[in-house]
Amino acid sequence: MLGTMQDVPLLVSRILRHGTTIHAKSQLITWTGEGPHTQTFARTGERTAQLAHALRDELGVRPGEVVGTLMWNNAEHVEAYFALPSMGSVLHTLNLRLPPEQLSWIINHAADRVILVNGTLLPLLAPLLPGLPLVEHVVVVGPGDTSLLEGTRPAVHEYEALIAGRPTTYDWPELDERTAAALCYTSGTSGDPKGAVYTHRSIYLHSMQISSAESMGLTAADISLPVVPMFHVNAWGIPHAALMTGTSLLLPDRFLQPAPLAEMIATIRPTHSAAVPTIWQGLLAELSANPRDISSLKAVTIGGSACPPALMRAFEEQHGVRVIHAWGMTETSPLGCMAHPPAGVAPEEEWSYRVTQGRFPAGVEARLAGPDGSFLPWDGASAGELEVRGPWIAGAYYGGAGNDPLRPEDRFSPDGWLRTGDVGVISPDGYLTLTDRAKDVIKSGGEWISSVALENHLMAHPQIAEAAVVAVPDEKWGERPLAAVVPKGEGSDVTFQELHAFLGERIARWQLPERWTTITAVPKTSVGKFDKKVLRAQYANGELKVTTLDPRPAS
Amino acid sequence: MLGTMQDVPLLVSRILRHGTTIHAKSQLITWTGEGPHTQTFARTGERTAQLAHALRDELGVRPGEVVGTLMWNNAEHVEAYFALPSMGSVLHTLNLRLPPEQLSWIINHAADRVILVNGTLLPLLAPLLPGLPLVEHVVVVGPGDTSLLEGTRPAVHEYEALIAGRPTTYDWPELDERTAAALCYTSGTSGDPKGAVYTHRSIYLHSMQISSAESMGLTAADISLPVVPMFHVNAWGIPHAALMTGTSLLLPDRFLQPAPLAEMIATIRPTHSAAVPTIWQGLLAELSANPRDISSLKAVTIGGSACPPALMRAFEEQHGVRVIHAWGMTETSPLGCMAHPPAGVAPEEEWSYRVTQGRFPAGVEARLAGPDGSFLPWDGASAGELEVRGPWIAGAYYGGAGNDPLRPEDRFSPDGWLRTGDVGVISPDGYLTLTDRAKDVIKSGGEWISSVALENHLMAHPQIAEAAVVAVPDEKWGERPLAAVVPKGEGSDVTFQELHAFLGERIARWQLPERWTTITAVPKTSVGKFDKKVLRAQYANGELKVTTLDPRPAS
Repeated sequence: MLGTMQDVPLLVSRILRHGTTIHAKSQLITWTGEGPHTQTFARTGERTAQLAHALRDELGVRPGEVVGTLMWNNAEHVEAYFALPSMGSVLHTLNLRLPPEQLSWIINHAADRVILVNGTLLPLLAPLLPGLPLVEHVVVVGPGDTSLLEGTRPAVHEYEALIAGRPTTYDWPELDERTAAALCYTSGTSGDPKGAVYTHRSIYLHSMQISSAESMGLTAADISLPVVPMFHVNAWGIPHAALMTGTSLLLPDRFLQPAPLAEMIATIRPTHSAAVPTIWQGLLAELSANPRDISSLKAVTIGGSACPPALMRAFEEQHGVRVIHAWGMTETSPLGCMAHPPAGVAPEEEWSYRVTQGRFPAGVEARLAGPDGSFLPWDGASAGELEVRGPWIAGAYYGGAGNDPLRPEDRFSPDGWLRTGDVGVISPDGYLTLTDRAKDVIKSGGEWISSVALENHLMAHPQIAEAAVVAVPDEKWGERPLAAVVPKGEGSDVTFQELHAFLGERIARWQLPERWTTITAVPKTSVGKFDKKVLRAQYANGELKVTTLDPRPAS
Repeated sequence: MLGTMQDVPLLVSRILRHGTTIHAKSQLITWTGEGPHTQTFARTGERTAQLAHALRDELGVRPGEVVGTLMWNNAEHVEAYFALPSMGSVLHTLNLRLPPEQLSWIINHAADRVILVNGTLLPLLAPLLPGLPLVEHVVVVGPGDTSLLEGTRPAVHEYEALIAGRPTTYDWPELDERTAAALCYTSGTSGDPKGAVYTHRSIYLHSMQISSAESMGLTAADISLPVVPMFHVNAWGIPHAALMTGTSLLLPDRFLQPAPLAEMIATIRPTHSAAVPTIWQGLLAELSANPRDISSLKAVTIGGSACPPALMRAFEEQHGVRVIHAWGMTETSPLGCMAHPPAGVAPEEEWSYRVTQGRFPAGVEARLAGPDGSFLPWDGASAGELEVRGPWIAGAYYGGAGNDPLRPEDRFSPDGWLRTGDVGVISPDGYLTLTDRAKDVIKSGGEWISSVALENHLMAHPQIAEAAVVAVPDEKWGERPLAAVVPKGEGSDVTFQELHAFLGERIARWQLPERWTTITAVPKTSVGKFDKKVLRAQYANGELKVTTLDPRPAS
């Protein structure tokens, strides 16, 4: 039996039409370095229609075509966010922080024929153009040195000139809600970058979730400052949620340094913000040095990597700003979970929940796959790889123009769930705590040992500056942990036996490393994360001097 | 180009599974007259599975089959709310306030073979059974006089005995999200009752909207008291939203009188409630007579009919409870709009927004159809019939088992929008103010005159107790207003000329009634609303003594 409800597809154009009519007076406030530039949602709707006309009529952009944006967070990027999906084409946000060769690879893989680029980013794009044979049009948004484009092949357009005088309405097509709306590639630390293709449906549902009181709870009374770039997973869905609910946006453009951020918060007084922990760390230091009033912020969402609890406490205690931990990834649109504490717990107990990755909303189903592939109980102790399912979770990766989607076995289970690559535990009341990356966890005799847990314990030792723990092959157990430690200062005389005993007081005996080595620094990736594959390679090549201890600690 | 997101249908079983695991500790608290009965969501999940097994295995309920519930708001009704749709069958809530003959008509039209009934409602159901030939099973929930069922045809079951011992999990089927989930009939003041068939998709999306911060904003930190019956449009979606977000529910069962409501609020301390204005009016009077602390309520949603502003102010000023106006109907699931004021207006100005029907969420598109069928601007002045579109708005009515859906022209536009039958204006910032019912509005020379506006002005005259204005045929204008007034007290000597002049100071001249009559009381329906069709018939039959004034008021 079918229902009698209207069959109305969930489309990005519906979010746009709603935001630009019902919330006509809400604003996009772009920070320009010369004060804020303000534009109403109504005007944004008109300019979005003009952009769509220009793209279709002037540059020949077709339905289904992928168009790149290499842009900061600003009003024009919001216009592209809505024009491209609404006209049936696909928004492809380009991560300007990627190494140039990866950026070129992605542009070629997505077959971008048109790229919208902020003038300030021409020094990044121009040198790539010779290696981008498919790019025919470059649309320059805002001031920049266009002489950099001289002698390159694509036609060059100026954004304002391109859209000027075109009709301010557009007859947005009714699309199947499963049509592609936006494309975002993961940064791909191993292998080629992988593209997640968001649909109109997934964006619409994700926007509703972001707007729910249990998530970010944005309303027309809010001004949100997405510091998270619009090229990172749709700025965590905030631009879409803003048009859906009438939330005004403060857009920082390229002014992501602590001082201008503090300045724009004090001036515009946003009620909400979202960024990765390093941004907040920098802002906290800035505010200590040059105090400003950031009390307008009721809540900030923090994600991208685990946030140090001390940072969360500092914001709350020094500035009255509540920091909410969130977890997600490119493949999850990104909202996976948010760490609002449960009702009825004491303020201090709240912290034990707020430092977790959080609780899943109804749209995200979760399970933990254990070392043998069986699913583990939610007991707060059984660690497994997190697998998720839901209407805004990727079920495949983009295969490139004309190709089938990719479903690598290590990323998608046979029954279609996303394998997140994150290892963690889930408490009986549904809070996720991530303990490791699946590729870093030590698989020892059918049990998993968290490398991160061992590292944290070791780094708590007063004579240890840094420590990394990696899996190394072991005949009996399959894998065992190797602890690589960096002693503090020149004169440290701590022994492996002492460290072993120190760990023995803190973790189960079977998890204690037998193999130890001293290094001068933990190898790091370009963004400062521990690069454990370097350590594993050094071990495999015999480059490390390893001491093996008696497995039983001295008693 | 298609996206790469997982194709996960939006199902009621997903809401159930989420609520009973992630929010296992949230509670259903049913008021019993002998204190509260508390049941966790986890236990509710087990009992819901048991109910589904019993319905399928014992009573032979099949996918697609419609099952009736004649029940108050209580935990068992929540179990039926989730068991039936989750197993692929259809929940049919029966309105126990309908006249018996209408209730029988509905049960027969829906072809209910099984009815779940609260024991306390057997006196209502038992006399109907001889006229319900399709009903084979009556499941009695809670204590009641089952001797009333002796000698009737259906098999009688006791709910707890029926579900006892059955498996506490159920392998809920993966369904198409457009499958019917629930059926609710309008009360049908004219013609036969009409059934709206909600789908899994519409319920899921509506639940997300209810949970959004811009609507009710329910979270796991809330306890909601839905006084609105679960047989009225899914209790406005609150039970579904509760399982979606972990909101605990305080369920009043049959204790809807002011005194027990005040008692349960003071005892259980809910944070949210929802009901029609008369409930709040009664509660306000009760609290004046017998003060109790209801300050736990942060917000109450009020709808079903327009709420007197004085009542909203009284709750806020005397009890610190914020009352939020909402509008909707059976055909809109029901959330149509909610009257949160815009940001940045002064507290007193807020009231001009809070007394409107409110603003539409993104899922509800609106337009105003004028007297000539053209669509009117949102200027706060142009009155038209409200038409709405969206994924939780009905596009047809249930045609009965095996029949095609019904799409009467007066309720559905050719392009599929719902004609609400409500006439109103929309302000430039998107706030809806209803002024009349389409059937009561006076269509005069291509313009509409609001009968309600004329009545309100007349009733503001110090010598008028009541007034009703109806359309009567007019050769020149098509229709013109007839004003029927009830003077205050015996000795009133107010003249029609005086009332005409009084109106002339308040409304446009072309809207002034020429035809006047005095009546002793305005005819009313069984629920106390003005029954204008009686007045129109009296006029048509020449039963009213009508005075016709010179169309130009004395100047």
